[in-house]
Amino acid sequence: MKRGASHPRLLQDLPTSLDEEQVEELLRTPHLRIERIVSTGQASAEGDWYDQSENEWLVLLSGRARLRYEDEDGEIELGSGDAAFIPAHRKHRVTWTSPDEPTVWLALFWPQT
Amino acid sequence: MKRGASHPRLLQDLPTSLDEEQVEELLRTPHLRIERIVSTGQASAEGDWYDQSENEWLVLLSGRARLRYEDEDGEIELGSGDAAFIPAHRKHRVTWTSPDEPTVWLALFWPQT
Repeated sequence: MKRGASHPRLLQDLPTSLDEEQVEELLRTPHLRIERIVSTGQASAEGDWYDQSENEWLVLLSGRARLRYEDEDGEIELGSGDAAFIPAHRKHRVTWTSPDEPTVWLALFWPQT
Repeated sequence: MKRGASHPRLLQDLPTSLDEEQVEELLRTPHLRIERIVSTGQASAEGDWYDQSENEWLVLLSGRARLRYEDEDGEIELGSGDAAFIPAHRKHRVTWTSPDEPTVWLALFWPQT
């Protein structure tokens, strides 16, 4: 990520193969955390659900992924520019990310109020 | 933006020509506001500076733009995936956005603490 912390280039110099997802914190305040997450085919383990204490809002900057909610049938297909708001404690899984290109998530987290 | 408020598709059905920038609020909490802004060649008027009471963090989802700060020489070139943190009251201008394609900004705003 070039140009330092104030002007990161989030789609440059991406890894093409990772043992596990790469999480990089971009900004943190008492009420907001911004992360860039890079996936190269990773998905949640079968039967595992994220059950987060924080609210999350995410958007795909590149790549493709699929989300599933425990309380909803079917999957949400996400491509570049597709966003999702996931309230705290709404259980969800990442069922798939593209193995063919890096999938770059921009994820915002903030405390449940 | 399809699939309703919880899963907006921020790069679909973009306008190609606008009289002025299109601002759409995606989410609002007491500590965070998320907007999608679409530019089709707009820029700040000559000599106009944004002087915002809130902190801003932005990333380009598509298109190209140039930023300038009053306290810094030169311009910041932004393309897809390029981000910027603009602290409250750091004066800045958008000197250019691409006239050839929609430029889609994701902008976060939160109160100065």
